[in-house]
Amino acid sequence: MELHGQHLIGSATSAEAEATFTAIDPRTGTPLATAFHDATPAEVDRAFRLADAAHPTFENHGRTARAAFLEAIAVGIEALGDPLLERASAETGLPLARLTGERGRTCAQLRMFAALIRNGSHLDLRIDHADRERQPLPKPDLRSMNRAIGPVCVFGASNFPLAFSVAGGDTASALAAGCPVVVKAHPNHPGTSEMVGRVIAEAVANAGLPEGTFSLLHGEGHAVGAEMVQHPAAKAVGFTGSFRGGRALFDLAAGRREPIPVFAEMGSINPVFLLPERLARSAVDLANGISASVTLGVGQFCTNPGLLVAVNGPGLDEFVATLADALQEVEETALLHQGIKVGYESGLDRLCGVDGVELVFRGSAERACGARPCLATVPAKLFLAQPELHQEVFGPSTLLVACRDVEEMRAVARALDGQLTATIQASDDELALCGDLLPILEQKAGRVLFGGYPTGVEVCHAMVHGGPYPATTDSRSTSVGTGAIHRFTRPVAYQNMPEALLPEELRDAAPGGLSRLVDGEREG
Amino acid sequence: MELHGQHLIGSATSAEAEATFTAIDPRTGTPLATAFHDATPAEVDRAFRLADAAHPTFENHGRTARAAFLEAIAVGIEALGDPLLERASAETGLPLARLTGERGRTCAQLRMFAALIRNGSHLDLRIDHADRERQPLPKPDLRSMNRAIGPVCVFGASNFPLAFSVAGGDTASALAAGCPVVVKAHPNHPGTSEMVGRVIAEAVANAGLPEGTFSLLHGEGHAVGAEMVQHPAAKAVGFTGSFRGGRALFDLAAGRREPIPVFAEMGSINPVFLLPERLARSAVDLANGISASVTLGVGQFCTNPGLLVAVNGPGLDEFVATLADALQEVEETALLHQGIKVGYESGLDRLCGVDGVELVFRGSAERACGARPCLATVPAKLFLAQPELHQEVFGPSTLLVACRDVEEMRAVARALDGQLTATIQASDDELALCGDLLPILEQKAGRVLFGGYPTGVEVCHAMVHGGPYPATTDSRSTSVGTGAIHRFTRPVAYQNMPEALLPEELRDAAPGGLSRLVDGEREG
Repeated sequence: MELHGQHLIGSATSAEAEATFTAIDPRTGTPLATAFHDATPAEVDRAFRLADAAHPTFENHGRTARAAFLEAIAVGIEALGDPLLERASAETGLPLARLTGERGRTCAQLRMFAALIRNGSHLDLRIDHADRERQPLPKPDLRSMNRAIGPVCVFGASNFPLAFSVAGGDTASALAAGCPVVVKAHPNHPGTSEMVGRVIAEAVANAGLPEGTFSLLHGEGHAVGAEMVQHPAAKAVGFTGSFRGGRALFDLAAGRREPIPVFAEMGSINPVFLLPERLARSAVDLANGISASVTLGVGQFCTNPGLLVAVNGPGLDEFVATLADALQEVEETALLHQGIKVGYESGLDRLCGVDGVELVFRGSAERACGARPCLATVPAKLFLAQPELHQEVFGPSTLLVACRDVEEMRAVARALDGQLTATIQASDDELALCGDLLPILEQKAGRVLFGGYPTGVEVCHAMVHGGPYPATTDSRSTSVGTGAIHRFTRPVAYQNMPEALLPEELRDAAPGGLSRLVDGEREG
Repeated sequence: MELHGQHLIGSATSAEAEATFTAIDPRTGTPLATAFHDATPAEVDRAFRLADAAHPTFENHGRTARAAFLEAIAVGIEALGDPLLERASAETGLPLARLTGERGRTCAQLRMFAALIRNGSHLDLRIDHADRERQPLPKPDLRSMNRAIGPVCVFGASNFPLAFSVAGGDTASALAAGCPVVVKAHPNHPGTSEMVGRVIAEAVANAGLPEGTFSLLHGEGHAVGAEMVQHPAAKAVGFTGSFRGGRALFDLAAGRREPIPVFAEMGSINPVFLLPERLARSAVDLANGISASVTLGVGQFCTNPGLLVAVNGPGLDEFVATLADALQEVEETALLHQGIKVGYESGLDRLCGVDGVELVFRGSAERACGARPCLATVPAKLFLAQPELHQEVFGPSTLLVACRDVEEMRAVARALDGQLTATIQASDDELALCGDLLPILEQKAGRVLFGGYPTGVEVCHAMVHGGPYPATTDSRSTSVGTGAIHRFTRPVAYQNMPEALLPEELRDAAPGGLSRLVDGEREG
């Protein structure tokens, strides 16, 4: 596929702005071929007008057609073959093996949502039959189901050029819900974005769907995204990225004449609590496990364990020494782009500059976007007094908080902001201690792990990749797993509606296999 | 019950502010006995600190205990007997018969949520079993369920002194979810609020729940509510009231360091589309039905049909004449309070002052809070050009939009803001026309009716009392029916958690009768 560098606005291509930008290989600093353009306000407007016009037609095309459409996108992405992975690798510095896995996840997500909407369980079908004889007033027939919320803005994430980008989880769940999607491509992998975007546009055309079902816009700075979020036709926003970016989009959306929901997943420090006996028994294993989790993907996962909480005592010194050794062995690797590199180094400078923070190891990198791990420690008392130590440093670093006792460990837990994950490492004899910690962590995190490490987010029904602010801007949602579809639906009730006018899933003669709550009892 | 006029802050009473206010009987303008105080910032802070401390204990008390607690509140409200209804009638001007019905609804809602949480279907239990052999990585065991979001601010509504007030739908659904509640009593019925609040406080004590489970604060102006919504421990807001009030709370909540969701139901104009043949055949019946719906409860329902949309042609003149006659026969009745009276009359002045709006009937009222109905008409072309005609006038008035043809009727539908309801009145021969209108109305409203009138909101599983902005600030929610509980829950996932640490509903050995999604298949 030869890249053209243009926006995809419905079935047309467009590039009205004169200024251009290019992607850069972070491993070498080399600009890559093909110039891309910032979308103009007129281009943003065209994309959303088309999306708005497409909404009811696309949704009413039906679940089976939408499922086939999602599957066609997966097939199309696979058909792009190695050139997609090569371009993605050049734009992000991520190795081909990782991108191969990410492509698998991307296509699996599309197929998971196809299966979900074929099954129809996301519709939350409810039927309450009429009772015409009821006194003092007759009871009407009421039926409700989840409908598509309308056009969705999706922001591609830099750290998942496939799985949280143009055809990633946000797009897949929004399309599955029946919502047209306008994607803002991440400016650091515009070529990857174009390749996948053209696959979606082709799938739209092949399926005979309205062209406004999908558009892809490029933009280097913040202006294009701001324009998108403020467009009157936009009805929801999906975003994975930095706290600053997510909050800015949230504020724009909340300030609209018609506020719209923003589902921004902004990452967190994902605390790991190392209980005393577990630490005493397994210091070396834990240190090696943490090292692998901290440095996976050069620490550029939202679930990177950026905070370790332990009690001073047996095993702690061995743990710290082993972890430092393991981190030192990790070679310099390129971060995704220069912005992340600058943020990582300045974040570490800030962290290490706090009085009482003791640096154990900080590797120095030689290349422009290169990074090496960092480990620091701080006494709990100081951590509790310094809210800035609670903030994420995006990259392969972690901070160990040393507590006097388990009570102080609980105080640390209570002091934390909202998190995507919280992990308890405990021995089988420490379940009572876990029982004291768990009610705190359940309030702080979207996912609580017993053992293991937070990186690696399983894509399934029971996954919650979300959590209280500032992990996300909406703790009532998940951006991974089948539950993600509910970000983009809203319930609609039909009262005394004739069978012929009802959505088919709510008819007495509905297709088989649907689960419905009928007069309070589950059927099917 | 002798009123004391104090706040209920956990198990204590408090009244630290010196300035006081009293309720006024809107039928006579007479101040009622008992002085109430504005809550001070320190009192607000105490209520939320107690709520925050109560949260995990209250939730972990378990569903059965919470269900019994909700039922005890219903029993306690019934035990207040006639004095509750009499005080509510004196504070609102609503007749005893209406308040008797509203008390029944209030207690039925509490019992409905008790039954819901006993059943556990709101928990959305999901289990994905581990697969330790999976390649390239083992699959973890993941289980998720809905948990309580945390302390909820509930604002009592003026137009439902029982069913959307201290123990109304917002409080019942929040407590059912396991959230402590801090209620801001509506200043126009503080005595009714105290009576019900004391019932809840007593139920908290009798059930051995933490005292912070419930608090009730008074306040005449906006300051107390603003303080509440901005308290760091508040995690969600339930509100039913004016657009201005709801939007102000939304803006405060969105501007917090940690933004919190606001579920504000702000009303709408609830359009009724009168299709040509139906109008030609049933002009008189429709006129009488509309008249009853417009004037029910002196037009003070969120679902009041404030907009009628018809096509010029057979039946329209007869419809307008009959409706005007019916409205003229409705006697002057007291609105809830002076603020609503002022808003009603100035809203009508604004409406009637628009060029092209033709006044058919506007009754004049003689008493301070008295109101009589109003009917005006406007050509569709003008309605489309004048967005201010799309705004709600809260009270017993309605505006008829006369269209050239059904295409213009659809243009009117497209031009509307978000609505709680939209109603189609059509004959059986007009289903094709309905089919053209329905896809528009589904995008505009939370509930679409075929026949009937929008007032009368059934409390059941399939009800959606919500809708796109400005009907509410969150179209993904309902404030009536069992779905209302989801406003106050968020999902939490547990990864590889030992059976003993899991919430009992997610254990392998869970209590019987729970519906769970196990590896994608529904069980139970």
